[in-house]
Parts: sequence; C-alpha cells; structure tokens
Amino acid sequence: MTVSLVGAGPGDPDLLTMKAARLLSDAEVVVHDALVGDGVMALIPDHVERIDVGKRVGRPVPQEMISTLLVELGKQGKRVVRLKGGDPFVFGRGGEEAIALQAARVPFDIVPGITSSIAAPAAAGVPVTHRGVSAGFTVVTGHRRPGEPDIDWRSLGKIGTTIVILMGVTHRAAIAAELIEGGLAADTPVAAVRFASTDREQVVRCDLADLGEASIESPATIVVGAVAALDLRSVAHFATTA
Amino acid sequence: MTVSLVGAGPGDPDLLTMKAARLLSDAEVVVHDALVGDGVMALIPDHVERIDVGKRVGRPVPQEMISTLLVELGKQGKRVVRLKGGDPFVFGRGGEEAIALQAARVPFDIVPGITSSIAAPAAAGVPVTHRGVSAGFTVVTGHRRPGEPDIDWRSLGKIGTTIVILMGVTHRAAIAAELIEGGLAADTPVAAVRFASTDREQVVRCDLADLGEASIESPATIVVGAVAALDLRSVAHFATTA
Repeated sequence: MTVSLVGAGPGDPDLLTMKAARLLSDAEVVVHDALVGDGVMALIPDHVERIDVGKRVGRPVPQEMISTLLVELGKQGKRVVRLKGGDPFVFGRGGEEAIALQAARVPFDIVPGITSSIAAPAAAGVPVTHRGVSAGFTVVTGHRRPGEPDIDWRSLGKIGTTIVILMGVTHRAAIAAELIEGGLAADTPVAAVRFASTDREQVVRCDLADLGEASIESPATIVVGAVAALDLRSVAHFATTA
Repeated sequence: MTVSLVGAGPGDPDLLTMKAARLLSDAEVVVHDALVGDGVMALIPDHVERIDVGKRVGRPVPQEMISTLLVELGKQGKRVVRLKGGDPFVFGRGGEEAIALQAARVPFDIVPGITSSIAAPAAAGVPVTHRGVSAGFTVVTGHRRPGEPDIDWRSLGKIGTTIVILMGVTHRAAIAAELIEGGLAADTPVAAVRFASTDREQVVRCDLADLGEASIESPATIVVGAVAALDLRSVAHFATTA
C-alpha cells in the first residue's frame, strides 16, 4: 500500500495494533492529528518525516488540504501513514480521505484502531454491553458541525441501548434534557471519562438529570445508561488509588 | 495482573494490539473462545496451556463455569489470558467475568480489542460514520437470548444513526420489517459482511426491504444506513478481485 489510514487508538501505545506499529516503523511520512497520544508519536523513528495537520493556533487544517496532501504524497509512491486518534472511520473523517484517494487511483488501506468510544468506558470499569442490562450501544457526536445530519435525541432515549457521547461536554445539559424528554429516567446513571488509559485518567459519575451541572471538562467520553453504574475495575486498581 | 480479559479483534492477527500479543507470549494459560481466529491462536507459544471454552458439540460451556475457572486459575497466581473474539465488552460477556474476579479479589485487567462491529464494515469499504451522511452508529445484537433487555427496533429506525447488527442473520426479515415500520425507507442501503479481513471475505449488498430474502449466512455483520452504499476500498482491491 502507498497510503495507510491508521487508527492510533485511545492514547496508550500498547493499544496500537501490530499492523499500525509495523506501518509506523516502516513509514517514510506520517501525517498526524493533534489527538494522537505522545506515547504513540514516540514510536515513530527519528528519520521519518512528520506532518502535523492538527489544530494550529486554534485553526484546524481544512480537510480538503489534508486529502490533497495525501493524494500528492501517494502519487510520489511514498509509504505514507495517515495517523488518527481512535479509529479512522469513527468520526475520524477517514471516509473523506478514502474517497479522495480512490478518485485519484492511489492505492490505500484502512487499518482499524481501538475506538475510545468503547475503550474509555472500559477503562472506567463500564462495559458498553452487559448481559441482562444492555443489549447494544449507540455512539454519537454531541458537537454539531455544519452539514452534519441530525440525531433525534428523543428517539435515542427510547431505544434501550447504552449511549456513548463523544465531543458532548459543551452541549451536555441540552442533550440530557432531550434524552429525558425522550423517556430516559432522570436518575439514569452517567459516567464521564477523560484521558482514559493514561495516568491522568479521571472519571466523574452522576445522574442524567445532573449532567449539565457536573464538573466535566473537554475532551471527555460520556456514557449514559444502567451500565454506567458498574465499576468493573480490578480490586488492585482500588487498592492503588485509594 | 493475574487474569487479563483480552480482545482478539476480528480475526487477522495483525489487528491484535501490542499488549494482547505480549500477554499471549507471556501467558501460562490461555482460556479461549471458538470465535478467535486461527491466525491469532497460532501466536500462542507451544508450551502454553490452552483451554477451549467455545461451543463443543453444539453446546456452549456455561458462563458460570468459565467465570469459576478464571477465578480458580487466578487464585493459583497464574498468568491467565482470557481470549475473546472482538472486544471483551462488546457482547463478549467480559462484564460477567470481571464481576466474578472482582468479587473473588483476583487482580485482573481489561484489554480492549478491535470490534468487528466497526472493522467488518470497514473491510467492506463502509465507514460507520461519515461527514454529512451519518453522525453516529448503533451496535445491537439481533439474537435475543433469555434475560436480555429488549431493543426498541422501531425507535431505532428513527434516530438517524448507522445501525450495525451482530448475530442478526436468522431474524433479519423481522428486524428489517420493524426498522421500516419505525420510519426507515424501504430502499435504505444494507451491506452484510462475512469473514471480514480474511481471504474468505464476502460482502452482500441489498436494500432494507430485500434483506429478508438476501442470501446471507451466519455469522455476518449487517450494516443498515446510507453509509452502506459507499465502497471505500482501494482501487487496488478492485483490480485484484475483478
């Protein structure tokens, strides 16, 4: 492959896939986001060219420019890794890059990564599915961008799955209100997880009705549902953090 | 850690995490499912004890027996890997095992794996989210087991996310009917993927109204939504499979 769209996972370099690690060590150019963890970046050999397309001075690099860059590098026949936090197809805009590469007939592949929508709750001891409690989960973004299709939050409150909200800290009060209007109980458990799988990990737990008032900073993964009351971490974890 | 609940990913051993690969090579005992791919099993060193708790002669080993086994092995202080297809917290029953280990005060950890609910669609060129098309995705099981909470399929048809159905081949006609009654268009695109990321990979595409009649065998991952019309695989893929 010329261009690999690679998921870097939630932050811990140990959660990279073997394929991702190999592609990084063999790459000639790595085009990366701001969201990729420092530990993952440290695995890139020194001689490899790095291009940062994350936010600079608060301004994101336009997606069209990133896609054009990947096509150009691919046409040069370089071994390019496009490295994204989490998974390239979970809010990673990998689809847009794949379309550009396909149109330009540049060979590419998609290398899945561990998504924080599952791994962040797991780090807090919350399983997104659990027998007898939750037979499914819904992952949505709480940050409405121009051109994004709407999520019907009220219907989402009715379906009975665990709800995982990414990029939802800013609008969490409005989201909670719509979920409750949709039928979710005001005391539905909520867990919000920051910096999952790192030594800065923080977990805040509250009821859905209190989500708007809870002290949560971006970026956080917010889990809503009965599973959020679980804390299935090892007793060793509690012993070391008590 | 004594017992690690480890996700083996969708089948390709290259999609194991680095942590999973290291735990497998250092393990004393591996307790594994039938769903774990042959390529992953081949990574387990010969001297490591393997215990198969997958279906035998059609009968699954009861979950309570598996949990009890993990607690016993953990109390012996052995380095145990409980290896599951996909992710341990996505229909992997990892939660039940974690509860048993926590109650017995056996140290454990959860090692996420690549879930086929995202990787199987990706292998077929289908992104579960895509800017301007899908702002989220819902993963549900279509195989109702005793004691499982209900999914409201009609509300699920209203929320606007991509829908990924695991273990849904048998009941696919009834599921499609309920989603259409819930408001999804009869011509909503569907892609069903078998053996993703292996050389036996198969993709069937159809409209939602035709899902019941489509020729799909278990196990398959079924994706419902506008994204299922996309086929974002490399032109190299089409060149080699044409």
